[in-house]
Amino acid sequence: MSSVLKLGELSVSVFGESHGGGIGCVIDGLPSGIALDTDAILSFMARRAPKKDGMSTARSEADKPEILSGFFNGKTTGTPLTAVIRNTDTRSQDYSNISAAARPGHADYTGFVRYEGANDPRGGGHFSGRLTAPLVFAGAVCGQILAKRGIESCAHILAIDGVYDDSFDTLGISTELMNSVKMREMPVINESVAEKMRERVKLAASELDSVGGIIECAVTGLPAGIGSPMFDGLENRISQAVFGIPAVKAIAFGKGFGFAEMRGSEANDEMYIENGTVKTRTNNNGGIYGGISGGMPVIFTAAIRPTPSIAKPQNTVDFIKNENTELVIKGRHDACIVPRAVPVVEAVANIAILSFLI
Amino acid sequence: MSSVLKLGELSVSVFGESHGGGIGCVIDGLPSGIALDTDAILSFMARRAPKKDGMSTARSEADKPEILSGFFNGKTTGTPLTAVIRNTDTRSQDYSNISAAARPGHADYTGFVRYEGANDPRGGGHFSGRLTAPLVFAGAVCGQILAKRGIESCAHILAIDGVYDDSFDTLGISTELMNSVKMREMPVINESVAEKMRERVKLAASELDSVGGIIECAVTGLPAGIGSPMFDGLENRISQAVFGIPAVKAIAFGKGFGFAEMRGSEANDEMYIENGTVKTRTNNNGGIYGGISGGMPVIFTAAIRPTPSIAKPQNTVDFIKNENTELVIKGRHDACIVPRAVPVVEAVANIAILSFLI
Amino acid sequence: MSSVLKLGELSVSVFGESHGGGIGCVIDGLPSGIALDTDAILSFMARRAPKKDGMSTARSEADKPEILSGFFNGKTTGTPLTAVIRNTDTRSQDYSNISAAARPGHADYTGFVRYEGANDPRGGGHFSGRLTAPLVFAGAVCGQILAKRGIESCAHILAIDGVYDDSFDTLGISTELMNSVKMREMPVINESVAEKMRERVKLAASELDSVGGIIECAVTGLPAGIGSPMFDGLENRISQAVFGIPAVKAIAFGKGFGFAEMRGSEANDEMYIENGTVKTRTNNNGGIYGGISGGMPVIFTAAIRPTPSIAKPQNTVDFIKNENTELVIKGRHDACIVPRAVPVVEAVANIAILSFLI
Amino acid sequence: MSSVLKLGELSVSVFGESHGGGIGCVIDGLPSGIALDTDAILSFMARRAPKKDGMSTARSEADKPEILSGFFNGKTTGTPLTAVIRNTDTRSQDYSNISAAARPGHADYTGFVRYEGANDPRGGGHFSGRLTAPLVFAGAVCGQILAKRGIESCAHILAIDGVYDDSFDTLGISTELMNSVKMREMPVINESVAEKMRERVKLAASELDSVGGIIECAVTGLPAGIGSPMFDGLENRISQAVFGIPAVKAIAFGKGFGFAEMRGSEANDEMYIENGTVKTRTNNNGGIYGGISGGMPVIFTAAIRPTPSIAKPQNTVDFIKNENTELVIKGRHDACIVPRAVPVVEAVANIAILSFLI
Repeated sequence: MSSVLKLGELSVSVFGESHGGGIGCVIDGLPSGIALDTDAILSFMARRAPKKDGMSTARSEADKPEILSGFFNGKTTGTPLTAVIRNTDTRSQDYSNISAAARPGHADYTGFVRYEGANDPRGGGHFSGRLTAPLVFAGAVCGQILAKRGIESCAHILAIDGVYDDSFDTLGISTELMNSVKMREMPVINESVAEKMRERVKLAASELDSVGGIIECAVTGLPAGIGSPMFDGLENRISQAVFGIPAVKAIAFGKGFGFAEMRGSEANDEMYIENGTVKTRTNNNGGIYGGISGGMPVIFTAAIRPTPSIAKPQNTVDFIKNENTELVIKGRHDACIVPRAVPVVEAVANIAILSFLI
Repeated sequence: MSSVLKLGELSVSVFGESHGGGIGCVIDGLPSGIALDTDAILSFMARRAPKKDGMSTARSEADKPEILSGFFNGKTTGTPLTAVIRNTDTRSQDYSNISAAARPGHADYTGFVRYEGANDPRGGGHFSGRLTAPLVFAGAVCGQILAKRGIESCAHILAIDGVYDDSFDTLGISTELMNSVKMREMPVINESVAEKMRERVKLAASELDSVGGIIECAVTGLPAGIGSPMFDGLENRISQAVFGIPAVKAIAFGKGFGFAEMRGSEANDEMYIENGTVKTRTNNNGGIYGGISGGMPVIFTAAIRPTPSIAKPQNTVDFIKNENTELVIKGRHDACIVPRAVPVVEAVANIAILSFLI
Repeated sequence: MSSVLKLGELSVSVFGESHGGGIGCVIDGLPSGIALDTDAILSFMARRAPKKDGMSTARSEADKPEILSGFFNGKTTGTPLTAVIRNTDTRSQDYSNISAAARPGHADYTGFVRYEGANDPRGGGHFSGRLTAPLVFAGAVCGQILAKRGIESCAHILAIDGVYDDSFDTLGISTELMNSVKMREMPVINESVAEKMRERVKLAASELDSVGGIIECAVTGLPAGIGSPMFDGLENRISQAVFGIPAVKAIAFGKGFGFAEMRGSEANDEMYIENGTVKTRTNNNGGIYGGISGGMPVIFTAAIRPTPSIAKPQNTVDFIKNENTELVIKGRHDACIVPRAVPVVEAVANIAILSFLI
Repeated sequence: MSSVLKLGELSVSVFGESHGGGIGCVIDGLPSGIALDTDAILSFMARRAPKKDGMSTARSEADKPEILSGFFNGKTTGTPLTAVIRNTDTRSQDYSNISAAARPGHADYTGFVRYEGANDPRGGGHFSGRLTAPLVFAGAVCGQILAKRGIESCAHILAIDGVYDDSFDTLGISTELMNSVKMREMPVINESVAEKMRERVKLAASELDSVGGIIECAVTGLPAGIGSPMFDGLENRISQAVFGIPAVKAIAFGKGFGFAEMRGSEANDEMYIENGTVKTRTNNNGGIYGGISGGMPVIFTAAIRPTPSIAKPQNTVDFIKNENTELVIKGRHDACIVPRAVPVVEAVANIAILSFLI
């Protein structure tokens, strides 16, 4: 049941292959009677679409989801909500030479072993980053439901290839800032870093290479007391969801690995009462204590590895002939997927957070 | 169902409070007929026990698990295996003054909100680090089953308060090294750092403070093809399990956040054939591609925040009176829980890995 | 997560409404590399299609499933297999007068309360018997995988309106008989009862009424040792699946309610060795002991209530005006859904059985 | 994960073997802050205890549960609630001659195959009816929580060996009747049948045989709108739970198999408004439509097969020597377990119903 994100009573069953008939998802467990703004869903999905600035693939993905079920008179029905996105512009011949020469860093070889050679290898098949499109659809739906409860989320590029954006103010992020970041082609807080990031990506592309980065995500408006200790808390569900995004290799809440060089007196978030509400003067713990929200923003970061599909010649293996070989990957590939992964991280955060509220 | 670690068909249901009648776990889904060495289980659990070097609490925890079910004639029966550990040395009066003054960094306040004031607050209750004892029991059992299939795991202290141990050789770790590390009072690879780490802990303790760190864990012998894409792969299950350990705030596979400053050509692990087997010349991805093992060691690190229970006076809130207050935590507390958390990380890795093999 | 049939690592996520864009299912957890005969899937689905003999609705359902994912080069890929069936001939105006006048025996009122008025009421929406079409698709796929392991299943009409067919020989059913039954328009063992059943249905239809019945299902070739005690055994999974079929109100294994009038000496199935294999001289327990198969055929029966949509005027309530009213159901409705439910019962049995073998 | 009853966010993990160290359960997902009457729990459990009238085994089961966790200051904490029952009076030598001669009708052989000979065979091990004691504990807890919401349940013996009690009035059952039935040694509605039932049991016992029966269970006070269509509705969850009771071989909601001889016009429950509330003039559907409660009592029956442990000599197989043999079962065995199974059925109904309300 590997492609069902089951969190509590909410489940998102994702299906499809990059070059098959279509991709999509079934969302089961949504509350009923929630009005959805389909245009806003499309806008959210557009944030993931390839950019026109040369930073991402030329493949024109219409990626218009068709809602097949669970949506009636403009509202959720409470029964499974299904969206299908057709695969149209697939040009699978571009991938013909990679069927047995494993792309290093990809799941070509591991998928071959796992599925005993039967999985669809075209364009990465079910392992393709394209599978994040239905995830973004689901996250857009969940985000609208969260918004009606005063909960907002926003992700941005924290780093690309060593160029760092500002971090969110962990004590509070305004709706205005969130909305601005979401509208930017390079979703950063400090716009002055965008150009430097673009340059790093272009440089890598010109060298037939790729770069990685970090995405930071914040969720505001979540009241205290949401989550659980041990295995089904905020960190467990968010991490299970975020590792569902191809290329994510690490996740950290609050100071994360920075805690390794902190003292307890510094790491502990001093608590105080403001207008009758418990608050903290710092938010080193990313708003989570014992798996449960404390009322401050939930903050986490995710590391995105450089996309493994690079144009440089690479030594690798042919896993059918079981021999060494050299590979030159053709086709269209992003030199940096971090900008496109930003709405995906935000989307899965929405799914994970909503799962605690239904 | 927050305290059930359900991974595929394996489930570990953990129960208990720090100062209640007892703690324990029910392991459901184990294979039948596996001989278990109960002495080795106790030895594994002893690695988590408080150390006598002043680094950890003076509480003498007998922590002898009683196996109530699922074990017959020295072998697993295949039906639920249950272990109970009695709480004996509890001295709950030490905690009497913290019932409503939230310990900053702890789940006192969030647990109070989550359970509407009904949870057992003594010694952290169900949020206590003591709940990791049954997890270690379960991980010791799973580790013995893995060993029969040639799979070994080992965790060590990678860092305490800025003092770093060597990392594992990601291309292979010998059984000898693993066994040595496990027997050390400070489980490090490079023994010369142990003393420096101890000093940092003692210094923090003398300053009524605490320190955090990083734990690295390796799993060797896992064949290629284990795991799944998207939401039920190695990273998803391991992270869901590891975030079940109190104090863990981040997890990274392979280079983790280091990918943010790498090029794809560097990050991709070059593949080659050796004696008919696919290998890689580097292992930046921690042995996992698309959620599936590639045959190289699985490597991950987890950040451990400094224990929040420090003797320094702290500003905080009384969440019943809803007013600001000052708190001085009495009682026995480790200035650094990283050494004791090492076998816990190894244990949950064992559980997560075994869950893919049954 | 009400519409996901999750049994072990196999999950079937069913979606759609009777008069929405389409219905379908996502099957996650199938083994990879299994060749599927798509014509045979269509033939299985045709057994559920409306019959032309006046016994069922005139709605011409093309019901051709489109496989969107998980199927490549004629084989399962091991990744989610998705099928979509478009809704075409819907004529929703026929249902216009039943939106608030609850059809007695239907889920109109309970669904309205459950989903706070937001569910799609047209044609029963997600509660429609039409949702069994994707279930049959999934069961046809699972059945082909079972057949490759020598496991066969067959359901038949055991009773319609008091007219009884012969029961299966619980000690063994030939493939020939199974295949014959499946090809019959009235799937019965003793063909002489078919005409009597048809007469009962026609009589009921002529009186603007409907009739119920019983379906018996057998699974042969299942080896001993499949299943588990307590909550995840053969009976648990099969019953959870079978109650997913609208109109099923009871399920019995082996002698079922007949045990209430039996002695233990009669109910116990005497065991003996034949050619080195353990067999039983009777099979009163439907091949299941302690939730686990014993090697004899698995046998169960399911009660199908008379379809509640009858043309007779009925007293009921308008649940929006909250007042009594009278209802005359127009539109096309089967006077007996038992024949069409036969392949559905067989399909969910296939899903449940396969879930134990992957 | 066979012995975890996971229903929505509620899970009951049952463990133990008849002659091991102890049995018990972990209940995860209970609401917090619910006061529990432990005496009432013991009274509920006493209803399952062996009777002194010669109808059941002489084994004196103290069966006092010790609550180890999840219960503080007389209330549920919301964290896992654990109860352990020690095995004391086990006399395992009585079972020495049945270790390889399969008791017909029992899981001796199927368990042996399933667990490859490693399961604990003493007294049925994990398959023993004794495992229903922790289930009753869990059901007693859930029942108290339901009662605080005005939901009551009651089971009674509907039949033993062909002697039938009255059925519940499906339109409503008074608290007084429920309480009376629960206090009776033979829990029947019509007390005049108790003596006849006892006679049938004694007769069977005198003939070294056993008898089966039917249990009926009603749940009142459940509001309309509880449950879901397809796979996670009231019927699915109740049946999954009820088939967790050893010896249950069938379950029926409302008229159950009786629907096979009814017309739709008769089966449909006519709806009307009474004091602003939707009611039905009959309750043939057992209060459930489309898997969702309609506001009338939920009614189901379960068939209990005659206990397979009979003193009569039986032909069977020795599954280790793989040869035919004769078996004479010694030891203490009930000639009829139906009376003791009554509170068990009620208990699992409580668990299943509560799972929908948290």
